[in-house]
Amino acid sequence: MGKITKLPIVHYGAAGGEEMEDTVTKEFQLTIVFNGKELVTVACSPAEMDYLATGFLLSEGLITFKEDIRSLAIDESKGQAVVETVTASLKQPRNLFLAAGGARSGSTLNDLADESPKVVRSQRMLKAVWVSEMMEDFKQRSEVFKDTGGVHSAAIADEEKILFFSEDVGRHNAIDKVFGWCLLNGVSTCDKVLLTSGRISSEMLLKAAKRDVPFIITKAAPTDLGVEIGAKLGVTLIGFVRDGKMNVYSQNWRITSEA
Amino acid sequence: MGKITKLPIVHYGAAGGEEMEDTVTKEFQLTIVFNGKELVTVACSPAEMDYLATGFLLSEGLITFKEDIRSLAIDESKGQAVVETVTASLKQPRNLFLAAGGARSGSTLNDLADESPKVVRSQRMLKAVWVSEMMEDFKQRSEVFKDTGGVHSAAIADEEKILFFSEDVGRHNAIDKVFGWCLLNGVSTCDKVLLTSGRISSEMLLKAAKRDVPFIITKAAPTDLGVEIGAKLGVTLIGFVRDGKMNVYSQNWRITSEA
Repeated sequence: MGKITKLPIVHYGAAGGEEMEDTVTKEFQLTIVFNGKELVTVACSPAEMDYLATGFLLSEGLITFKEDIRSLAIDESKGQAVVETVTASLKQPRNLFLAAGGARSGSTLNDLADESPKVVRSQRMLKAVWVSEMMEDFKQRSEVFKDTGGVHSAAIADEEKILFFSEDVGRHNAIDKVFGWCLLNGVSTCDKVLLTSGRISSEMLLKAAKRDVPFIITKAAPTDLGVEIGAKLGVTLIGFVRDGKMNVYSQNWRITSEA
Repeated sequence: MGKITKLPIVHYGAAGGEEMEDTVTKEFQLTIVFNGKELVTVACSPAEMDYLATGFLLSEGLITFKEDIRSLAIDESKGQAVVETVTASLKQPRNLFLAAGGARSGSTLNDLADESPKVVRSQRMLKAVWVSEMMEDFKQRSEVFKDTGGVHSAAIADEEKILFFSEDVGRHNAIDKVFGWCLLNGVSTCDKVLLTSGRISSEMLLKAAKRDVPFIITKAAPTDLGVEIGAKLGVTLIGFVRDGKMNVYSQNWRITSEA
């Protein structure tokens, strides 16, 4: 399985919107089955997954030596790394720790297999030029990043302005802070725009769709699975918003190139 | 609690090493206690932690409305967000999902409170100029990033060359792949150098220390907690390795400015 793929996008620049092809990084969901039990599902690049499973178990303290591993098999069709250890009594992980930048979500791809996946039905449209302007405003607000280079930021905006801006060492934390602010302040998120400084993978799309957010915008890149979920769940995903240009990866009908 | 702090560093440039002060982003460990039970520990920036806890519970599907929350209190001294809901029977998270970029570790700060934290005892030293050269080599290897901008990379090197290089949509996955490769190929990690394209927070230092890696090097920024753990656990942490310059945040004695 390759690590990259080509996807059709609409690129907006000085000359308006233009259909082209973009190279996007692949995202794969690998479930580590440890001694017969599903331990964790990790979103990863589909390469060297035997090393990933081994390193994960090592980092979690579940194995110590190569000799602890009785067998290790990657089943790409099932999306599984099946690991058996020599002794089944190796210690279990004591608790879940989410590190900075630590993505996690109750949403997995299983949500997509539900009878009726929750599609974002917002009819809101945005001008491409507005997207560029809002991203400039967003970038200028990141004071901590200017000082340290060490944080990500997220914000929620309506069609006029940014309503709330947040920074965190974790890109998912920054988004959770934004949604937390909305809930605690009675701000509805449908028809709103989510801005993020970070890369966009599947769980961000699921998170946005759960909150009925029709737009997710980043200065960085998406993954192919993020794009796929954006298309399925009706979220307009816009990446590489820089210098008046941008790539629309899904639900492009919500973007207009009028001035 | 502020979101940034000042730390003493040694900056290496054309004129050799120079002691100065650097502004570093703060990292805080917040445990969400949900209806009396420790749900998760999240490494975050110490601000708007009420929004973070709310957004986390929202994203996990554990609450739906503001009215679901009976009480929400942040206790900075204990590092806790204590949340009580109106009905205790709200659904529990079904399983742990780790998203792209999803950091997680069996190591928490509790490890530091152990009787004898594991200190990296390597006596290996490196020339600053070597660090710059190795980072250049490292950056040039990232083919997928060049194509897509969507992945992080990690590598393990000895004092001569990069031994194994890996890329992944998750920066922690890339590091796990590196350590997995080492274990499966019988490559000892003591005296080695870990390179990463991403920001360095506490759990990366703990992960490196567990594998006896004395050097962790990034082109990006560290957090203050990462620096603190590097100092305590004997790991030399080098950040902002760019254009022949770098900042050494901990255990500077391992770096020499000789040519």
